Amino acid sequence: MNIKRVAQNTAKVLISYLTYQAVQTIVAQLRETNPPLGIWLNRFSSQDKIQDGEAYIQELLQVNQDLAMRVMTVRAHLAEEVTEFLPEMACTGIQQANMEHRRQHLERIAQLTVSHPTETAESGSDSELSDSASNESNESNLDNRSN
Amino acid sequence: MNIKRVAQNTAKVLISYLTYQAVQTIVAQLRETNPPLGIWLNRFSSQDKIQDGEAYIQELLQVNQDLAMRVMTVRAHLAEEVTEFLPEMACTGIQQANMEHRRQHLERIAQLTVSHPTETAESGSDSELSDSASNESNESNLDNRSN
Repeated sequence: MNIKRVAQNTAKVLISYLTYQAVQTIVAQLRETNPPLGIWLNRFSSQDKIQDGEAYIQELLQVNQDLAMRVMTVRAHLAEEVTEFLPEMACTGIQQANMEHRRQHLERIAQLTVSHPTETAESGSDSELSDSASNESNESNLDNRSN
Repeated sequence: MNIKRVAQNTAKVLISYLTYQAVQTIVAQLRETNPPLGIWLNRFSSQDKIQDGEAYIQELLQVNQDLAMRVMTVRAHLAEEVTEFLPEMACTGIQQANMEHRRQHLERIAQLTVSHPTETAESGSDSELSDSASNESNESNLDNRSN
């Protein structure tokens, strides 16, 4: 696993998402101050187009430089306000979600074991796919470190 | 602008993206150790499905619990390795990209001014949309703070 590449790709996705949030913020502001311009910006900013934040801003600069400048200002502001909380929010969010998935899964297995004790005792090796996966899964952390 | 809501939505997008990266990592590992399972996981993990990381893991738990557990382990590991660098990478990335967009835009305007001095002097107020936008753009920071 190439941690540096994952970090770079993740930062790029994050920047594009903050650009999208900046546009949403400006559209909401324009709804109050200049509705026709808000509608225009909303139409211009389709989800496909905004997947790449930099290409989107370049295109917007060609047709409305003031709005493009405003998007750049707001996304820089959002990044400063929001990103410092993200490491903790993402790590805690993943830990909690993982725990909840495991808990629900154990409950489901326990219920199955109570209702069909013999069938489920072997369910871990029922299919070829889950059988081969179980050999891999314990090594995943080691693999990650060494790749 | 509701900073807390933006932070929560951004964390959710980040978690789903790290889930996607965890799946990509595991598919790459399986290519070496168990190609058929790698192909199966790659087919199972379509882009649409993985947009919501939690729904994806729930679905994977139903069909292959070992792989689902492995995805959860790898995404938690990725979050710990990667997220601490993101605030700096996102803030610096946005500042640099904004600077570059502004520089390119100024160069383009300068070139236009040299080649067509009279036309471009009024280009800022050419369209109704850019005219109305210019009144707004200076207030965007104030708006953001107060909303």
